Amino acid sequence: MRIGLAQINSVVGAFEANFEKILFYLDKARREKLDIIAFPELALCGYPPEDLLLRKSFIKANLTYLNKIRKCLKTETLVLIGYVSQKKDKIFNSVGILSKQKILDTYSKVYLPNYGVFDEKRYFTASEEIKAYLYKKFKIALSICEDIWEERFIQRLKGDFSPQILINLSASPFFAGKFELRKKWLSSLAKKFNLTILYCNLIGGQDELVFDGSSLVINPKGKVIIMGKRFEEDLIIFDTQKKYRPLWRKMDRIEEIYKALILGIRDYLRKNGFRKAVIGLSGGIDSAVSLYLAKEALGKNNLLALIMPSRYTSSQTFNDAISFSKNLEVKYHIIPIEAIYASYLERLKPYFKGTGFLDRTNQNIQARIRGNILMAFSNFFGYLVLNTGNKSEVSTGYCTLYGDMVGGFGILKDVYKTEVYKLAKFINKKAKDNIIPLSIIKRPPSAELKPNQRDQDDLPPYGLLDKILKLYIEEDKPKEEIIKLGFKKSIVEKIIKMVEKNEYKRRQSPIGIKITPKAFGKDRRIPITNKFLS
Amino acid sequence: MRIGLAQINSVVGAFEANFEKILFYLDKARREKLDIIAFPELALCGYPPEDLLLRKSFIKANLTYLNKIRKCLKTETLVLIGYVSQKKDKIFNSVGILSKQKILDTYSKVYLPNYGVFDEKRYFTASEEIKAYLYKKFKIALSICEDIWEERFIQRLKGDFSPQILINLSASPFFAGKFELRKKWLSSLAKKFNLTILYCNLIGGQDELVFDGSSLVINPKGKVIIMGKRFEEDLIIFDTQKKYRPLWRKMDRIEEIYKALILGIRDYLRKNGFRKAVIGLSGGIDSAVSLYLAKEALGKNNLLALIMPSRYTSSQTFNDAISFSKNLEVKYHIIPIEAIYASYLERLKPYFKGTGFLDRTNQNIQARIRGNILMAFSNFFGYLVLNTGNKSEVSTGYCTLYGDMVGGFGILKDVYKTEVYKLAKFINKKAKDNIIPLSIIKRPPSAELKPNQRDQDDLPPYGLLDKILKLYIEEDKPKEEIIKLGFKKSIVEKIIKMVEKNEYKRRQSPIGIKITPKAFGKDRRIPITNKFLS
Repeated sequence: MRIGLAQINSVVGAFEANFEKILFYLDKARREKLDIIAFPELALCGYPPEDLLLRKSFIKANLTYLNKIRKCLKTETLVLIGYVSQKKDKIFNSVGILSKQKILDTYSKVYLPNYGVFDEKRYFTASEEIKAYLYKKFKIALSICEDIWEERFIQRLKGDFSPQILINLSASPFFAGKFELRKKWLSSLAKKFNLTILYCNLIGGQDELVFDGSSLVINPKGKVIIMGKRFEEDLIIFDTQKKYRPLWRKMDRIEEIYKALILGIRDYLRKNGFRKAVIGLSGGIDSAVSLYLAKEALGKNNLLALIMPSRYTSSQTFNDAISFSKNLEVKYHIIPIEAIYASYLERLKPYFKGTGFLDRTNQNIQARIRGNILMAFSNFFGYLVLNTGNKSEVSTGYCTLYGDMVGGFGILKDVYKTEVYKLAKFINKKAKDNIIPLSIIKRPPSAELKPNQRDQDDLPPYGLLDKILKLYIEEDKPKEEIIKLGFKKSIVEKIIKMVEKNEYKRRQSPIGIKITPKAFGKDRRIPITNKFLS
Repeated sequence: MRIGLAQINSVVGAFEANFEKILFYLDKARREKLDIIAFPELALCGYPPEDLLLRKSFIKANLTYLNKIRKCLKTETLVLIGYVSQKKDKIFNSVGILSKQKILDTYSKVYLPNYGVFDEKRYFTASEEIKAYLYKKFKIALSICEDIWEERFIQRLKGDFSPQILINLSASPFFAGKFELRKKWLSSLAKKFNLTILYCNLIGGQDELVFDGSSLVINPKGKVIIMGKRFEEDLIIFDTQKKYRPLWRKMDRIEEIYKALILGIRDYLRKNGFRKAVIGLSGGIDSAVSLYLAKEALGKNNLLALIMPSRYTSSQTFNDAISFSKNLEVKYHIIPIEAIYASYLERLKPYFKGTGFLDRTNQNIQARIRGNILMAFSNFFGYLVLNTGNKSEVSTGYCTLYGDMVGGFGILKDVYKTEVYKLAKFINKKAKDNIIPLSIIKRPPSAELKPNQRDQDDLPPYGLLDKILKLYIEEDKPKEEIIKLGFKKSIVEKIIKMVEKNEYKRRQSPIGIKITPKAFGKDRRIPITNKFLS
């Protein structure tokens, strides 16, 4: 028997396009003489559809397209399609089993995730029925995403049906290291329960989320024998007759992040009807790494860099921005903000005079002038503004709302500063050249919004800051536990306060690509009005 | 027996302050010789705590403070406190029954809401145990918020225990008309099940939400016999010995909204450590109504209005802004943006020349200059910027991101334009004077960002627009159903497209006060990347 896993890039709500993509892979299935072909979780409507699931018209369109697929099926191949099924006023996260113009059966998800970025209990009713099928002498069970992460589910399945093959349809959002986790967990299950596991995962970017594909076939010894492409569409085929050798291609953490970010950028623009993007290029490391990633995602001809020096921009930074744009062959404009800045100072002087109209206020004015210019290019030419702020900044609020925080999409929003450096080094290594000038990497980080400014004047060193942020944000460790790990109390308290006092800024920040176990956005829902700082 | 319902204004995470407030009401209970005193749902930690519930330190602090309360209880009075209880790794939304330094029992919520603004299944485990108590010859049952909205719950309770009195601890977010709904539902339950219902509801603003208090005592005939204050703290006392007459004070829809907005503004500032606010005053109706509401919430001395005319501001609008500020006795500055605007045009001309550098791009530049100036006042003086955009604008994206969309908190975000007019008329009627100049109310709405601009050039008339928005957003009606109700297809399609294409803007808009059944924010979770428009 030949089973195919089609890891496709669906778009949320794009029924016609998703339908056509599914037909394309069904044609492949026919040519490959597959007995079964599986698509990812909710492949028909895209994942996650969020509150579109509350729209009757959405559920209806999804059923209409399931029927369209059904009508196209002339062969005996079993087609497993993720869709939304409906019984009276309840909806289920389901897989339809289709063949020869019939819907043979529907399996619905038993375990609905309702944590992290997931809100499935908001929409779906949990099914209570586990199922297995005898098909061409193989006992095959189905499962959808979360199901396979619940050992109780596999135990019940094994107890009731003793399947040999377990197919899982997933839409499992990426974070760095998750692939490794998935492989370990699925391998242990396969071995413990003597199963061949076929894991079919969605690929593509959808708002904050990236799905990495990386579908897997794991034999009952717990060994990976087939792997789908990472961050690309793919069709992988498992043949029960064939002998397979264990294989495993590890991917470095930074390479994973690199690929996830590129896919995230590309899909956000493509799926939202943008071809071109504009980036504010400061000459610092965040915008340099962002521009490089955007170039990889969109091509150099679809990018514009705006270099917007002020009276506080050093010549080194300015020259770095220019030489980096040249290295990348990306078009750039130099737009000094001095005259505009002077016009603000002149206009506002009467109101702020005598109290040292300095520091935060006029730093922010400069950043907001740049934001206004970026948005003018966006409005005039239809470019998307890509935001380049990193997670260390966004965590601590070390950034200007409506200034360097402008943009439709945040490239580095979930990447700590220390990892931005690693990305820069990875890029230079990959390019076999210092395509990102070394002076950009080596210069101490500065916002250059006042004379001789350094990030480290206001923030703890990034190495230290990022460690504490990770413990606090991603691991939800209480203040006291973090201090017990050996960090200075005053620093831990300062950082926690910065994080919580800047929730209001994050609520107005562009969405960005999740690459850690807990990103800002849907993943972390902390009230703005909050007096708890422990 | 005397039972008190203390509708208090807790702050999320402010354990010490909430504890002190509870002690204050316990002292009242002692003086009033109450047998029972009830506080709202999760009164100890504030509601909703959202992901703070995932922090071990938060759960621990909440238990610590429950114990502090316990230790303070010298009398026999039963104290019913909403708090988070814990069993192993599970947490529950609970009410502790405390008396004479003991925790006598805990009742935990059975029905967890996980729709609309609620995510309770993300955190809590649902209890399966319903309970009733015999106390001073009365059979009393407890319930928490959603429990009482499930008729099955009351049926089980009645079947198993036949209580005479049902106490409900709630944190029920306000929307206009909800009080009426609550009263109807609770009255029908009281009558059907022969119960005295004591409904104790939270009051106060918490981010997007306003809780309106308005606690109720309803007799077994289904008549309201006691009502707590609306939008204020209160302690109401029900005495089983006393005879009560039915009473009912209806509140007009617009008055409800008016009070909710004032409480929302006041609490957002107070709870986030702000005393003063700044508002951009255009001379249009939105900013006029907003400034009035802010004055009622904060006092005229805590407000600054910035009037920022441009070359497109009419003298009528400009004069209206000034005379309105004078009417309110609110301090204002006049800061023309012309020179700054000219400096942007000059600087950007080389890039946009020859292509009619007009319309949307330079309209937005003007709005963003105003945003920058407002934020400069915020940064320099520590004022909160209050945003004045209405729901019709926010729905259709008829507003400038980082321009008129700046601010920490949106006063009218959930108020349709047609209701802003009603608020203006209500305010003038209340003031027995045209405190809002009639010319502000009568002038056709315009953003005044280009010559002779009218909102109605780009949008359907607000009367029509708001009707369609309500059907689409609040009632989730499919496009086809809205058209069948008699609206023109092309207009319905245009509006739906505007709504969905502007989701990215709303994600970066300030949070604002929910006053309808479905507000933007936590209430409506639509993906930005979304091709579904039906």
